[in-house]
Amino acid sequence: MPAIKHALSTSRQSDFAQWYQEVISEAEMAEESGVRGCMVIKPWGYGIWERIQRLMDDRIKAAGVENCYFPLFIPLSYFAKEAEHVEGFAKEMAVVTHHRLIGDDKGGLVPDPEAKLEEPLVVRPTSETVIGAAMARWIQSWRDLPLLTNQWANVVRWEMRTRMFLRTSEFLWQEGHTAHADRDDAMAETLRALEMYRSFAEEVLAMPVIAGEKPENERFPGAVGTWSIEAMMQDGKALQAGTSHYLGTGFSEASGIQYQDNEGAQQYCHTTSWGVSTRLIGGLIMVHGDDDGLRVPPAVAPHQIVVLPMLRDNDEDAALLDYCEEIRKALAAQTALGEPLRVLLDKRPGKATGKRWAWVKKGVPLILEIGGRDMAEGKVSVIRRDRLWNEENGKVAFTGEAKDAFVARAAAELEDVQRALHAEATQRREANITRGIDSLEVLRAFYSDDARYPGWVETQWCRPSGAELDQVVETLKSMKLTLRNVPMDSEPANGECLFTGKPAVERIYVARAY
Amino acid sequence: MPAIKHALSTSRQSDFAQWYQEVISEAEMAEESGVRGCMVIKPWGYGIWERIQRLMDDRIKAAGVENCYFPLFIPLSYFAKEAEHVEGFAKEMAVVTHHRLIGDDKGGLVPDPEAKLEEPLVVRPTSETVIGAAMARWIQSWRDLPLLTNQWANVVRWEMRTRMFLRTSEFLWQEGHTAHADRDDAMAETLRALEMYRSFAEEVLAMPVIAGEKPENERFPGAVGTWSIEAMMQDGKALQAGTSHYLGTGFSEASGIQYQDNEGAQQYCHTTSWGVSTRLIGGLIMVHGDDDGLRVPPAVAPHQIVVLPMLRDNDEDAALLDYCEEIRKALAAQTALGEPLRVLLDKRPGKATGKRWAWVKKGVPLILEIGGRDMAEGKVSVIRRDRLWNEENGKVAFTGEAKDAFVARAAAELEDVQRALHAEATQRREANITRGIDSLEVLRAFYSDDARYPGWVETQWCRPSGAELDQVVETLKSMKLTLRNVPMDSEPANGECLFTGKPAVERIYVARAY
Repeated sequence: MPAIKHALSTSRQSDFAQWYQEVISEAEMAEESGVRGCMVIKPWGYGIWERIQRLMDDRIKAAGVENCYFPLFIPLSYFAKEAEHVEGFAKEMAVVTHHRLIGDDKGGLVPDPEAKLEEPLVVRPTSETVIGAAMARWIQSWRDLPLLTNQWANVVRWEMRTRMFLRTSEFLWQEGHTAHADRDDAMAETLRALEMYRSFAEEVLAMPVIAGEKPENERFPGAVGTWSIEAMMQDGKALQAGTSHYLGTGFSEASGIQYQDNEGAQQYCHTTSWGVSTRLIGGLIMVHGDDDGLRVPPAVAPHQIVVLPMLRDNDEDAALLDYCEEIRKALAAQTALGEPLRVLLDKRPGKATGKRWAWVKKGVPLILEIGGRDMAEGKVSVIRRDRLWNEENGKVAFTGEAKDAFVARAAAELEDVQRALHAEATQRREANITRGIDSLEVLRAFYSDDARYPGWVETQWCRPSGAELDQVVETLKSMKLTLRNVPMDSEPANGECLFTGKPAVERIYVARAY
Repeated sequence: MPAIKHALSTSRQSDFAQWYQEVISEAEMAEESGVRGCMVIKPWGYGIWERIQRLMDDRIKAAGVENCYFPLFIPLSYFAKEAEHVEGFAKEMAVVTHHRLIGDDKGGLVPDPEAKLEEPLVVRPTSETVIGAAMARWIQSWRDLPLLTNQWANVVRWEMRTRMFLRTSEFLWQEGHTAHADRDDAMAETLRALEMYRSFAEEVLAMPVIAGEKPENERFPGAVGTWSIEAMMQDGKALQAGTSHYLGTGFSEASGIQYQDNEGAQQYCHTTSWGVSTRLIGGLIMVHGDDDGLRVPPAVAPHQIVVLPMLRDNDEDAALLDYCEEIRKALAAQTALGEPLRVLLDKRPGKATGKRWAWVKKGVPLILEIGGRDMAEGKVSVIRRDRLWNEENGKVAFTGEAKDAFVARAAAELEDVQRALHAEATQRREANITRGIDSLEVLRAFYSDDARYPGWVETQWCRPSGAELDQVVETLKSMKLTLRNVPMDSEPANGECLFTGKPAVERIYVARAY
């Protein structure tokens, strides 16, 4: 097999972390902003986020949840109401203390001491407290329940070590917040949101995930229970890609979210919250990217097909552009994955080859390169991004075919790319989950090879709590491992707890994680 | 004419400011959040904003502008670069000084003195400086120009006196930022954005506006020229509803936004910025609201038609709901204003009359009330929100008609509501603009009646500058008036300047303003 010269200088195999940064940079998705811990999301990265937003928002609305917008700032006193919650977040928040600047005597600016706030404001790290205060105003009786609300917003959690899309001080997300009459209804909503995230990841992002409950030590601060979807990256590590929390009545008691039940008694509401963020884009890169850059699943690709005329800066260009525009128009009239195709005719000046590689690195599912000969023959030359190389000759794999034939099958081809990316990722994940490890010694040996990280282990445990759980977490930490989640659809336990030797009650995933 | 009992307790006539707050509250659009200067935007208000976003975003993208996302925080040093800009904003910004909280000895929380930032961060009041820094990285040669970017974001300007949607410390907006090779190209973009806003206001919001240039004293801090759209509210005052700025090379010089021209020389870019915000919703209320609440133009109504079954909590309800669902479905298959109709079947329990008035106050363009008799006769009863009352009998005006006939004309009816709201607002505005006032004495007399504010005056002036302009502004201020803008399509000047007696060079609007 001839050597392939890939578009990126770093391969996944040689340095996964460096490869990740290179994809983001070469696909022009985001960059460091110069502002500590904050990134600039560039058009291609933001375009993918807009697609995620639109399709997730449709699902959120279909569930009867209504979008609102709540304040960016949370007064310190609100935040201090829920003890565990404040404990979990207080270490990493941006605090506004002044509302005005004045000139200093060196020609610079400083916060005006006269404009110090009586009560500092926290830039929201999450909005349970401020939305809880609104819910306390909005809910009077059982007739007002369930109250289902969501917001799309920016949040800030001060981070010492940041990585673009995965961990930034400011990030974009949606946060659903709901209030219910009782535990059952709140639990049903928690699991509805979890299932929404699971199916979104699988169907829209082509990203296989395990939906399950996080162990006690990984719960959201103040939650009674936390569920997550966990995805496997190509380096075998786990990424928590979305969470859904059952908050019990803790936040309701802190914020006074009460309702009168149908017998006239005052009751505290049971609340939930759930969110996904721009972190999904980090997951997308690490699940679907290859040594030539990103590969974007068609459902979230800002452009699903790019038409690239091979312009030669001469008299024939006009006719070629007409031919390409005709193809673009015919494609844009097709429907794939339930929406009209998103097709770009890239008319910019410059060599087609340079432009081709830019689109390859961005991961556009289908690229059409169209030259004078194609036009003369009524043809198109197609590159399918997820099968970029002809492995026999080490060159880019083109398919030449009649224009009309391609137009007729373009939608099916995109749907096949979507399926193929999902199948490839699922196969890889299954190959990197190990089952049947039944002692800590074997586990330690399994993870002892520093050269190659061997993926996830599914094991059985006794669901320990308190100090016993702390001991498990410490043991795993010594192997750089973490508990991921207890899968919703796990086989029943039938053995001993890997950590304590007690009878196991459920299965749980163990992995290194982002 | 019999007395009409309106849905609101305050009329526009009796107390416009109070009426405005009452519309917001009764239509459940927004409320005070408990966080100083910040509001909670509730589902109906946010739903209107989502419609504005979607339709404005389509226009922004159609102009070739790409969406990005830039940091919420701006380091103080970035902000201090452009002298006039910092002067204009420095007085009203939220300043982050700490990145962690710790417990104090009274069981509360305080900013951790150990976690004081070396350089304070400003919560963006607008993003010229941080986007300028990105542009300086992105632009090398003339081939990179024009660079057209936009973001949808929250911004913060500390305000002492706030009013919901019109002036809040935090608000939502879009800000376009573009860089160009020369003045002509940048001016063309400035005026393109202005025209986009003008046509959006007229066509989508049904809000007539005057597009024109702001006088020097009203320019954006650091801008060479500022243009605006100005709308007349029902109390005759002006609302600046959108702005577009030509920034010259000032921001480029401050941020180092340079390009190599096609002869190899380094040149500074000419930049622009332009924005509209949630303030548009305040304008919408004050242009279209009436004594029964809001009236939403169909183009931005989250629900254009609400179907209200008159449920009686008995066995016939199921059949009635089926009948209503059939109507909803038939309507949702229609297209108005270029989009499928947005139709809600309101199945919630509760009396139809109560629900009707809730939707009236929210301003849904068409409300269908459907009872058992309507069903038996295959009919619907229609309320058109902009013609709510039968003035002859003082009752709500229903139109009864065959279901299929209504479905067939529903789209046309909605388009007629859109037209009618625009026509009504345009007629009111024209009736409240006075021309031909040719001396300050007459102007003063014209505005001296405190009982009734008489609207805008279009006058002629010599476009004074510096101290001479300051004098004009002071004179107007003594009458509680401001200069609004010089309309793009004004008749040529043909007389003397109202303020100086010099030959006039252009026309300008004078008004009280929000």
